[in-house]
Formats: sequence, C-alpha cells, structure tokens
Amino acid sequence: MKKLINAPEDVLVESLTGVALAHPELSVDLETHVITRATPKAEGKVAIVSGGGSGHEPLHGGFVGPGMLDAAVAGEVFTSPTPDRVQAATQAVDRGAGVLHIVKNYTGDVLNFEMAAELAAMDGIEVQSIIVNDDVAVQDSLYTAGRRGVGLTVLLEKIVGAAAEEGQTLSDVADLAARVNAQGRSMGMALTSCTVPAAGKPTFDLPDDQMEIGIGIHGEPGRHREALAPAKEIARQLLEPILADIDVTGSPAIVMLNGMGATPLIELYLMYGEVAEQLKEAGVTIERNLVGNYITSLDMAGCSLTVLKADDEMLRLWDAPVQTPGLRWGV
Amino acid sequence: MKKLINAPEDVLVESLTGVALAHPELSVDLETHVITRATPKAEGKVAIVSGGGSGHEPLHGGFVGPGMLDAAVAGEVFTSPTPDRVQAATQAVDRGAGVLHIVKNYTGDVLNFEMAAELAAMDGIEVQSIIVNDDVAVQDSLYTAGRRGVGLTVLLEKIVGAAAEEGQTLSDVADLAARVNAQGRSMGMALTSCTVPAAGKPTFDLPDDQMEIGIGIHGEPGRHREALAPAKEIARQLLEPILADIDVTGSPAIVMLNGMGATPLIELYLMYGEVAEQLKEAGVTIERNLVGNYITSLDMAGCSLTVLKADDEMLRLWDAPVQTPGLRWGV
Repeated sequence: MKKLINAPEDVLVESLTGVALAHPELSVDLETHVITRATPKAEGKVAIVSGGGSGHEPLHGGFVGPGMLDAAVAGEVFTSPTPDRVQAATQAVDRGAGVLHIVKNYTGDVLNFEMAAELAAMDGIEVQSIIVNDDVAVQDSLYTAGRRGVGLTVLLEKIVGAAAEEGQTLSDVADLAARVNAQGRSMGMALTSCTVPAAGKPTFDLPDDQMEIGIGIHGEPGRHREALAPAKEIARQLLEPILADIDVTGSPAIVMLNGMGATPLIELYLMYGEVAEQLKEAGVTIERNLVGNYITSLDMAGCSLTVLKADDEMLRLWDAPVQTPGLRWGV
Repeated sequence: MKKLINAPEDVLVESLTGVALAHPELSVDLETHVITRATPKAEGKVAIVSGGGSGHEPLHGGFVGPGMLDAAVAGEVFTSPTPDRVQAATQAVDRGAGVLHIVKNYTGDVLNFEMAAELAAMDGIEVQSIIVNDDVAVQDSLYTAGRRGVGLTVLLEKIVGAAAEEGQTLSDVADLAARVNAQGRSMGMALTSCTVPAAGKPTFDLPDDQMEIGIGIHGEPGRHREALAPAKEIARQLLEPILADIDVTGSPAIVMLNGMGATPLIELYLMYGEVAEQLKEAGVTIERNLVGNYITSLDMAGCSLTVLKADDEMLRLWDAPVQTPGLRWGV
C-alpha cells in the first residue's frame, strides 16, 4: 500500500487536523469528527447536516460553509458515523428553524441518521431527511437496499444549501431536496480499485486490460466488467442508463463529470467533452457543469457522471454564492 | 495503460475540447492550443502569458481568467509549445502595456519563449520574462540547466496576475515576479510513476516498497530513492532542503501542499497537517495556504511542497479577487 499516511488507524484524525489548520473558517472537532462553520448562520434559518464514511473528500467536510452545509459528520473511512455524533452535529447547528439531514442511501448511514433524528426530536429539534439514491447502476447492492446515493449528493447539497441560506422553511427545503433527488441520476466506472488504509490492499482485483462499469463509491461491484474501451464508448456506457431512466430531452441540465480520486484533470476534461457532445445529440442542454474531483473513492481511478434535470429555481440556487473549500463562487 | 482517453495522439485536443465546453468564460483555440479569456482585460494593462507542456492541469490553462493569466499556451504532453504559438498568444492578449512571460525553467520552454519574445518585439510588443526555478531537489537535471521550475509557478501566476490586473507597469510586474521567484522554494516526491499517453507505459519503475524523493513534474529522477516512510518523515524530507536553502524563520509564508495528480485529498490534508506543524516548530507563520492538485504530473501519486516567504504586498495581491477554473475567490 502506497499512501501518504502515518499509521492507518490515524488517517481520519490526522487528515481532519490538516483540514483544521488549512481552513480557519471551519471548526473541526477532533473528538467527534464533526466539521462546522466557525461562524454559524443567522438564527431562524434552516440548518443542513450531511455526513457518512470518509474517503470521499471533498465530500462532505469540504462542502461546509456559507451557501452549502452547516455541518458534516465524518465517519471512519467507508464507515457510517455513529448516531450520537450526528445528533451532536444537529444540535450544534440548529438555529431554531429545524435541520435537514442529507443522507446517501447506504444501510448504515440511513439507520444512524434515522436514530440521530429521533434523538434530536427528543431535544425538541425538528429534523427532516432526504435519502439520496441516484445511482442507476444497480438496484440493491452490497451496502444498500435500493439504489446507492452517489454524485447527485454534491449537487443537492449545493442547491438545498442555497435555499436554506436564503431563508426557506424546513418544509420547503425538504420538498426541494426531494425534487432534486427525483430529477437526478448518476453512473460511475473504475479503471482501478481503491485501497482502504486499514485493509492495506486493493478492495478488488481488476486486471490491467479491464474496467468495471457501474461501480459504487466504495469499490462495490458494478454492473459488469469488460475490456478497456475508448473514452467515447465509456461516456456512452455511463450516459445510456441515465437517459434510459429519466427523460431529460429538451430540458436544461446541471451535469457533473466527477473523478474518483486518482484520475487527472486532463482525462476528466476529455471525458466531459465526450459526455457533452453525446448529451447535445440527445437533445439535452447543459446549463451548468462541474468537472473535477468532488465525490471520490480514496485512490480509485475512474469517473462518474451525474445529470440533473434542472428547473429555474434549481438553476437560480445553483448560481447563488457558495464559500466552501470544495466549491466557491459568487463571493 | 489505463486512461480515460481515445487515441493517445488526440489527448490534448480532446481535453481542450472539454475545457472549451465546460468553460464558456474561456476562449480555446483548438488549432494553436492557446487558451485566453473570452473577455479580454482593459486596454493599457499588462498582460500575463504562461504555458508549457500539458499534463500538469490545472496549470496553466486552468489559471486563465480575471486576476491571473491572460493566456496559456498548451504544448503536447510534457512538450514545450512552439515559439509561433507563444507569439500568437502574446499578440492576442497584448493591451498596449506589454506582456510578461512566465516560464518554468526547462530548456525547451526557455528557448521557445525566448524566441517568441523576440518575434513579439519585432511586432512592437514589449515582453519581459520571468524564469521560475524554485525546485531545491537538484541543480541541473534531465531537462534543465539549473533548478527546475515547479510549484512556485502557481503562486507566482496568482500574485503577478493580481498586480497586472490592478494596473501595475510591466517593469513593476516583472520586478515583483523576480522577487516572488527569489523568495520561493519547492520540493516534491513520488509514490508512483506517471504514464505518458504516447509512451503507453510508466516513465520509470518504482518498486512497491519505495518512494522517490526530489522528483520533478515529468517523472525526472529526484535526489534518491528509499523505503516508503510515514507522512511525518516525508514532510521532514520535503521541508528540510527548503529551509536549508532559504531562511523563512520569523516570516509570514504562503504554503502550498500540492498533489501530483493521483493523490486523494484525504492524504493531501494529512500531509499538510504534518508540514504545518513542522513549519510552526521552525518559527514560520503560515499566513495563507493551498491544499489540492494545482500543478500535477499526469497520474503520478505523490506530492510537492512550496514555501513562499511573503511580504505585505504579496499577501495583499494573493487576497485579490481571482476567477479561474483552478483558483477562485473574492468574486
């Protein structure tokens, strides 16, 4: 295992230490692994909390800040954070208007956030939750009942974060989250496995001449393996199942071409070019885009594609200012 | 070779096509491989041109925009752009106040930018140049006489770009560039080789239990190889030669912990934590920082450290608004 780490068991805390030192605008609790804004938002606004296993950076901690999340709860690598920590984050950021939990659909995350919401309710905090389940690759998977939650989480956190920032009610914010989730789909692929520090070896073996189509963000099996193919063909294999699942023709879209952590930008832009061309042929208008590493899988090489069929409100909220380590514009 | 590409010979143009589609605020010439701002800066301001071989993204094309570069010239992967193209870029962005060329110290780049400057002079354009040579790892190298130009280029482009944007004269901008270059140092390391698409195999072999200290950004040999070490020890090996070469004690510094392209953010933040702690022990105050992939080496895993001993003007210009795909704040 080749990694820039000390001991595998210290990776999370030491990485969070670096985050704290690099970003004085964030407050990082090295005991609970909760990241919040150093300056909380105003009283009376809805707060947004997300979290899950680590190893997907910048998601979620890198999306804490004005216009996006109020708190992120970082579990150990690929491991759900415990309910008490999600509850602690929820309590810390509630400004009297309730809290939205954004949860990727993995069994552990869903259970632990649910329990945290119940604990928060006992403290008199109103919590609503959105379970993101945008991955068209597989139905049930190793870690989920139903579809996995992947790339759409980034877009949803941005849009919903902007809605909370402008003062929308918890019920409106939750409705918006449900709408975004209903209108977004993702599909990923891998050229290589990732290596979990504590395991010390690749999660799966992928021969030098093969790729895995439909991979999850933890190295879970995808749809199938096949021979390495040109970028154009890979783009087709990511896009086809998305467009088969949701009709985006004639609609404006927000598109993210995301790297899995070890894919250089020169390849991501090349893939984006292929995807953009094929979407145009399919009659989809890309109104906004993101190209880069936003929801990763440690050191996995590969990419994922997310397409969100956007309405005017989503586009307006997308353009609203955001000031986080991972996404920043308008400020 | 596992890459998200079509044919190796099309990588650059196809990646630039993606850049053009993703960034309507840039103008990308697919013939000359020159990237400029879609909206040029005002007449009478100094323009900044940089460039070099591709494979280091987001450098340089990703740093074109208000507050930073006016144009970037993209050579083929790890190959200098030809003088006529650098000249074309220089002509395209000159606003009557002269042009600064920012050149990383590699023999091909230096020669070609020099020739381009002479060609531009014949067109009546005043050009000054800064040769960035911040790499303390080796003196002469495979591709250079003298030190290589590496990470400091990113910091210099930001600071000098801000000076040009606020209307400083060419002579002042060039002086500032020289000052930044004199006060900055870098050192890199690799866990793995990179693979040039046209070569189809890793540039060098690095056994599973070894790392290369002092690596360049093209996989050029570094100072030495040794057994993989903990992050803390790697940080020490990057920092020590920098601090041996320039006295930063008691000074404010701008520090970049940069990924080589295939290193996930969780590891980069961990490394930053180590570096920040050791710099503090050395009496250096980190005033600003960057953690992420800014000057890469295709799909190489590893990192580099850049330390700039900053004065008040550099800090002020660092904080000035910048609006590029790769760096963005204040707007």
